[in-house]
Amino acid sequence: MAKKTLVIFGITGDLASRKLLPALWNGFLNGRFKDLSIWGVGRKPWGNAGLHKNAREVCEPKDEKAWQAFEKKLEFFRVDVEDEKEFNGFCEKLDGRSDLLFMLATLPSLYEKISARLGKLENKGYRRLMIEKPFGHDLKSARALHAELAKDFGEEVYPMDHYLGKSAVRNIVVLRFSNPLFEPVWNNQYIQSVQIIQTEQQGVGHRAAFYDETGALKDMVQSHLVQMLARVAMECPKKWVPAEVAKEKAIVLEALRPSDDIVFGQYAGYEKEVGHASNTETFVALKAFIDTPRWKGVPFYLLAGKNLESRFAQIVITFKPMHYNVPALPSTLTITLQPEEKFILKVNLKRAGESELEPFKMEYCESCEIRPRSPQAYEVLFEEALEGKKTFFTWWPEIEAAWEFVEAVQKKAKGKKPLTYKPGSPIPKAAEKIVDWKEYGE
Amino acid sequence: MAKKTLVIFGITGDLASRKLLPALWNGFLNGRFKDLSIWGVGRKPWGNAGLHKNAREVCEPKDEKAWQAFEKKLEFFRVDVEDEKEFNGFCEKLDGRSDLLFMLATLPSLYEKISARLGKLENKGYRRLMIEKPFGHDLKSARALHAELAKDFGEEVYPMDHYLGKSAVRNIVVLRFSNPLFEPVWNNQYIQSVQIIQTEQQGVGHRAAFYDETGALKDMVQSHLVQMLARVAMECPKKWVPAEVAKEKAIVLEALRPSDDIVFGQYAGYEKEVGHASNTETFVALKAFIDTPRWKGVPFYLLAGKNLESRFAQIVITFKPMHYNVPALPSTLTITLQPEEKFILKVNLKRAGESELEPFKMEYCESCEIRPRSPQAYEVLFEEALEGKKTFFTWWPEIEAAWEFVEAVQKKAKGKKPLTYKPGSPIPKAAEKIVDWKEYGE
Repeated sequence: MAKKTLVIFGITGDLASRKLLPALWNGFLNGRFKDLSIWGVGRKPWGNAGLHKNAREVCEPKDEKAWQAFEKKLEFFRVDVEDEKEFNGFCEKLDGRSDLLFMLATLPSLYEKISARLGKLENKGYRRLMIEKPFGHDLKSARALHAELAKDFGEEVYPMDHYLGKSAVRNIVVLRFSNPLFEPVWNNQYIQSVQIIQTEQQGVGHRAAFYDETGALKDMVQSHLVQMLARVAMECPKKWVPAEVAKEKAIVLEALRPSDDIVFGQYAGYEKEVGHASNTETFVALKAFIDTPRWKGVPFYLLAGKNLESRFAQIVITFKPMHYNVPALPSTLTITLQPEEKFILKVNLKRAGESELEPFKMEYCESCEIRPRSPQAYEVLFEEALEGKKTFFTWWPEIEAAWEFVEAVQKKAKGKKPLTYKPGSPIPKAAEKIVDWKEYGE
Repeated sequence: MAKKTLVIFGITGDLASRKLLPALWNGFLNGRFKDLSIWGVGRKPWGNAGLHKNAREVCEPKDEKAWQAFEKKLEFFRVDVEDEKEFNGFCEKLDGRSDLLFMLATLPSLYEKISARLGKLENKGYRRLMIEKPFGHDLKSARALHAELAKDFGEEVYPMDHYLGKSAVRNIVVLRFSNPLFEPVWNNQYIQSVQIIQTEQQGVGHRAAFYDETGALKDMVQSHLVQMLARVAMECPKKWVPAEVAKEKAIVLEALRPSDDIVFGQYAGYEKEVGHASNTETFVALKAFIDTPRWKGVPFYLLAGKNLESRFAQIVITFKPMHYNVPALPSTLTITLQPEEKFILKVNLKRAGESELEPFKMEYCESCEIRPRSPQAYEVLFEEALEGKKTFFTWWPEIEAAWEFVEAVQKKAKGKKPLTYKPGSPIPKAAEKIVDWKEYGE
């Protein structure tokens, strides 16, 4: 009998289909999750057959024999967690079992209710709770959520940001601290600016109701963007253990403050999609500073938006041009995360026969390497949680610092109506007033 | 009528066929040398037809119309410069002309004789003299040669090292001083060692007689290797003008001294090729230091050899591993010059799903770019000399400093018999005692 059980609440939902099931299947092919039972919980009347059918569709298995073995792990449980009796009945099935890892892929409004009941289980091994963002909707609610979940799970809450499972994001600190070239120049003496950009092509679609309560600042900046920023800007921890890394990330996020350069945008047609007038921003661009000795005076430019021309995510570190008695251009280090994971160093050289400097790219494309079944972000995170590690999870002090930053931005932007931009447009003109935003791979 | 005349002594020789004529043709296609007449001087009875035939063979023109125009520039003169009357007769043809650039692609033993006669010309424009290495065979003879040539040409002597015309070699200082990333770590605090390697597959062949007088140390180390080293190690000049750059190169070469780690080798069968017993080295590997504040304690490893497994030239800068509370590997910056001109930065990252550091390459291949007719080294040097610039030429103080270094090596190696190695072998084992030599692109 399998020793560990992963229980996914919301197995019939979008996240489970798009990300969780494919990641588990991929991990299984990579030799992971062998001793794991996977219980899917949902309200739809799927049954095991329905879950298996759906899983096959989204995982597209090529190896039928392996698939049969994987499918055996997947069990479906029809449970309405808002129905106390039904939920209790399900929980009794868990009581006798050993290690339990829960993943909440449900509406955030259900987190506390589910957690409260799971906290009362009488299983034999550990109990761990993975939750997907949003972690609250402001500082106060985040603190309240944390307090509630901690009552039931103590330190065993694992807030996920799947961006942190991406290999290139994890490699930011490796690049910085395991190579002699970068750390000596990784400061305000040599770095001119940092841009962190995440653009999407999709509009809000069926998430309109949720999104209208949230907006780009809370949805993207509070999570992915500040998490990337923390990795770029953090100091070297005393020890490379998750708790120490988290401490340094929190310190740098606590020192983050917005400038007055803030642009909110909303794509044309958004109000029609949500069905009412709205001031929610679907686009945000801003300039921020980090008040630490390392970063004093270096602008960090953050940009996130929906319904734009192209979908990409990247971090661009621009180094100051050095004038060693010669004209110079800035050099840049670009880390792209979407659609490809790449490291691009742009250096100035002279083309044969020319006397002018030109930028040339030295490139390593991580995701271009042909590696069958390279681990996916969620796969890494499941693996970590099963082992009780929190290296690639978000810690509460970071979450709180991120909310403080978001509230500081909101305060500065208060009363501003978002500017309208055309769906599918490039980065809106208004944002160019803040800085010349880099294009993908630039 | 063409305003300038390039006179190549030794037009029927190997260098003219392999390098000079193709470079001139390439330059012509690139729009250079339009107002130039090219006079080829040789002892063989070629005539214009013979020169044109040979030039066509070695240039392999694709554009017949352009070739016809180029061919018109090429005139052949049968002259034995050792026959005073013949040489005088030729020189009289030059007297009335305007700007004259001479290129000596002859035996070095003829340099002084040719120069002495050319110094007496009565042409109307400038007179410049390009010479190919070797520049003397030791410090004393180099000084004597310089004194003789300077009598006839003053400052208008252009000692060529075609390596300095290579785009990647020229880009070493651009990389260092026009990018903020490298100069801050370009010193003994961050750099662990530097390797400069040039290996050849060919044996001495028909150059046996010359080579046996010379050896690898004088042939390669004295010229290409220390010239590359000078670019890697020089300080930033006060101004980027050729004279100031040359000054800094001379300073760093004057501070270069060999350690006791010196290995001389000779490939098996060499003595049979030269026809007598010989102690001439066809291979040299050594460790040297530069006594300046920037480089104190950093070993510079130089290696050059003939008749080895592969033909390549490269510079490898190895950075010290930084221990920011994490295990680290050294990073390297490799500049390859042969067979391709590339910049390769090897950084440590973690492969997705792995916890061990691995080296990954960020690469820019200059010579891989598809650029029709990118300028060749000799093309650049001709162009420079025609314009009276000496950016990519060797200056006498550097030549003298290089000879001083060579003599210091010889003094330390005195009495050592070269070790025998198998033709076509990898880097001889004996050299591995000095350091672990990097392979091509490593």
